[in-house]
Amino acid sequence: MSKGLPKRSEDYSLWYNELVKRADLAENSPVRGCMVIKPYGYSIWEKMQAQLDKMFKETGHSNAYFPLFIPKSYLSKEASHVEGFAKECAVVTHYRLKNSEDGKSVVVDPEAKLEEELIVRPTSETVIWSTYKNWIQSYRDLPLLVNQWANVVRWEMRTRLFLRTAEFLWQEGHTAHATKAEAMEETVKMMQVYAEFAEKYMALPVVRGVKSENERFAGAEDTYCIEAMMQDGKALQAGTSHFLGQNFAKAFDVKFATKEGGLEYVWGTSWGVSTRLMGALIMAHSDDNGLVLPPKLAPIQVVIIPIHKGDVELDRISEKAHEIMGKLREKGISVHFDHRDTHKPGWKFAEYELKGVPLRIAMGPRDLENNTVELARRDTLTKESVALGEVDIATYIADLLDEIQTSIYNKALNFREEMTTEANTWEEFQELLETKGGFISAHWDGTSETEEKIKELSKATIRCIPIDQKAEDGKCILSGNPSNGRVLFARAY
Amino acid sequence: MSKGLPKRSEDYSLWYNELVKRADLAENSPVRGCMVIKPYGYSIWEKMQAQLDKMFKETGHSNAYFPLFIPKSYLSKEASHVEGFAKECAVVTHYRLKNSEDGKSVVVDPEAKLEEELIVRPTSETVIWSTYKNWIQSYRDLPLLVNQWANVVRWEMRTRLFLRTAEFLWQEGHTAHATKAEAMEETVKMMQVYAEFAEKYMALPVVRGVKSENERFAGAEDTYCIEAMMQDGKALQAGTSHFLGQNFAKAFDVKFATKEGGLEYVWGTSWGVSTRLMGALIMAHSDDNGLVLPPKLAPIQVVIIPIHKGDVELDRISEKAHEIMGKLREKGISVHFDHRDTHKPGWKFAEYELKGVPLRIAMGPRDLENNTVELARRDTLTKESVALGEVDIATYIADLLDEIQTSIYNKALNFREEMTTEANTWEEFQELLETKGGFISAHWDGTSETEEKIKELSKATIRCIPIDQKAEDGKCILSGNPSNGRVLFARAY
Repeated sequence: MSKGLPKRSEDYSLWYNELVKRADLAENSPVRGCMVIKPYGYSIWEKMQAQLDKMFKETGHSNAYFPLFIPKSYLSKEASHVEGFAKECAVVTHYRLKNSEDGKSVVVDPEAKLEEELIVRPTSETVIWSTYKNWIQSYRDLPLLVNQWANVVRWEMRTRLFLRTAEFLWQEGHTAHATKAEAMEETVKMMQVYAEFAEKYMALPVVRGVKSENERFAGAEDTYCIEAMMQDGKALQAGTSHFLGQNFAKAFDVKFATKEGGLEYVWGTSWGVSTRLMGALIMAHSDDNGLVLPPKLAPIQVVIIPIHKGDVELDRISEKAHEIMGKLREKGISVHFDHRDTHKPGWKFAEYELKGVPLRIAMGPRDLENNTVELARRDTLTKESVALGEVDIATYIADLLDEIQTSIYNKALNFREEMTTEANTWEEFQELLETKGGFISAHWDGTSETEEKIKELSKATIRCIPIDQKAEDGKCILSGNPSNGRVLFARAY
Repeated sequence: MSKGLPKRSEDYSLWYNELVKRADLAENSPVRGCMVIKPYGYSIWEKMQAQLDKMFKETGHSNAYFPLFIPKSYLSKEASHVEGFAKECAVVTHYRLKNSEDGKSVVVDPEAKLEEELIVRPTSETVIWSTYKNWIQSYRDLPLLVNQWANVVRWEMRTRLFLRTAEFLWQEGHTAHATKAEAMEETVKMMQVYAEFAEKYMALPVVRGVKSENERFAGAEDTYCIEAMMQDGKALQAGTSHFLGQNFAKAFDVKFATKEGGLEYVWGTSWGVSTRLMGALIMAHSDDNGLVLPPKLAPIQVVIIPIHKGDVELDRISEKAHEIMGKLREKGISVHFDHRDTHKPGWKFAEYELKGVPLRIAMGPRDLENNTVELARRDTLTKESVALGEVDIATYIADLLDEIQTSIYNKALNFREEMTTEANTWEEFQELLETKGGFISAHWDGTSETEEKIKELSKATIRCIPIDQKAEDGKCILSGNPSNGRVLFARAY
């Protein structure tokens, strides 16, 4: 490592960008706004994918794959949908290049113009519902529970690695149901799946809530979301689940024969999480030394580093290390023995700290003599000496990994609780935003006008109306008009 | 099922198209040349992916992700590469739509024109090697062993589901090495990984070989391939592995400091298989009743169908079925109990035959009485009664699934051997092509001119020069010029 990371307290944004690059998670590509996800970063995403995919299948969903391209006219079929996405669509207009006249480069062949332009999917509701029209005839074809893992493109002007990129990876679930109640149940169920994933695997506490009309998905009747708190006091939307009503069914004429012999429009949902979760994971737990990964998503859970002079010592350490590795692997713990002679132990310690490996085992000659190892926790940066004769090392480490997982979650939860404050006046609200940030729980009169005014004045948006929010009479923080419950405001990513 | 499939003997091509659609594997999308992979088809692709991914990781590769878009100018940097791909590239020229003047549709916003057009990746060598330039400085950074699972687009004019589509899913490995020998070793290793996957998992025997210069990947110095034989006597290229020499390193100026202190260009490989493998799998084994899946890739390996009158009988069958399912699942066998009352047993039998489920268990009242089940093999369409008291049903079925896997492979191997013929004269060659098809092993003078002439006259191409081909003096089948070994010709997909 050439030098340390920038400090979070000095420049949180720079700290994040540098951490993403130095920990080999991702980097900017030659194409503006598109990222390269590097092998180490991708291996974390793969662990997220595997767990989410398992949860989707356990709740009855199957994967499928729909085309990357969407005919331009499809987008217009659902009025608010096109309104939401037309301004940021990559458009394919030609299908061939040809040599330039001087033969030195290639140019677009004007003769290879498409009859109808194609949009690179920003989301797939339109192409999927046009397909569902053929798949759904009768109540027997319902529910249809489909998910897709795919890349999507939204031409963002200001991009940041993982948080906002022109191309990103995600999953999008698209389901069709016979009744409104069933579609609503699915919408809420998938929000709960996301929340469970965030909390149990990412160690990231989230607020479950509903979006205000302004913040709804373009084409949805209701958007449920999970919202997380980052260390700089800004909120991050980590996943959304949309109740689409019959909007897309009507736009694409998807009807089904009911059991009773009628013909009705289908009810729909869609839900997604993306590589943005990587940004949330990084920003929620990491520190000035680098990444802090919850053990359940760490590609390497334990690293073993030998401290030795000469090959004879290395051989003896190696033997012991392999014995420990065997025991850990039997318990399904992923472990890496870094015996490279190109780098010194101190360099390696810093490297694995930067990469967020939850546990480090160091073994030197004195450890061999005493039959001990030095165990260091990444999250707390604490060390202990463990006597191998006195514990079953695999069980000890498995338990410790669980404890780390819980501890990281609790730390994030305590932080979020500290960072959630009630405001009862506009002055309080403004002061909190400037001095503390975080979630601000405040009364709102329920109108889009007030919401927009607040956003304009404070850059804070309504993150959600928490689903467990108690009814409470009060006055809107800005307009003073009556309100019957608090909502959560924050500045957000 | 409304009616049976077309017969292979009458119209192989129609049989294939209908089978793909009726077995719920894939269908054409509203976007010309792009397919929708349906849930059942995708679940087979997922099994392929999982196994290949495991094999890539076991051979030291990591996954990463590179951008969908490639700046147009990048394509021109490697001369033969642009030559090979420019004619079939989807081109993004704009990044925004706007409302039409009448407000009824959206049009491309002429003000949102990109400075440089972007190509939707047809393959990723250029964008990856431009990235490798930053990743590789020293011999310590090598080898770099990276794979990507992605979608790619090649604007094909004539498309067929799975076999040739404008967008397809694939994996592309891109590796960088310090020496020519190591890159060559990697190229051959990955061809062998593909061959092992095809033979052990797809039950598909393949010829391992090298392409002639004409058939090489655009930008490669050598292309290794695996070639399979379909039931209609046409060959199918199932995977390729390219030795890129230093071509892309030179095009993107990727040099590394050697151990000895020099500065040298890096050596490269790339290798890929795609959803085309689905086409190969379908065409190699299936019959006039539908799909035949090798057990190792079957999403459902065993289906249990109750044959009953009334609910009391169903309850008793159900109990037994769940007992069997429990035992099978303990052995990792995937099993589905289809107790729907909306369809009759005969309909279900035909449905699971169409979908290629390797084993069907039927249980009726007499089976309950006798403590037997009826077991039907999809591949041979044979049935037997199994006495549950006399065998351990899970072991019996696990063994039978292995036997089916081997049997499907052997059948395909025998067929390929029958369909591989030597030709020694041009007349023999032509007659074989017209009457029998298959692989024709014949002498060729090694020139591109002759190869092209043969293709023009016969529509047969050189599929490969098998790696185990013995040296043998002979005369070229067309030109009569001297040859020192046979090559494999065929008409191909």
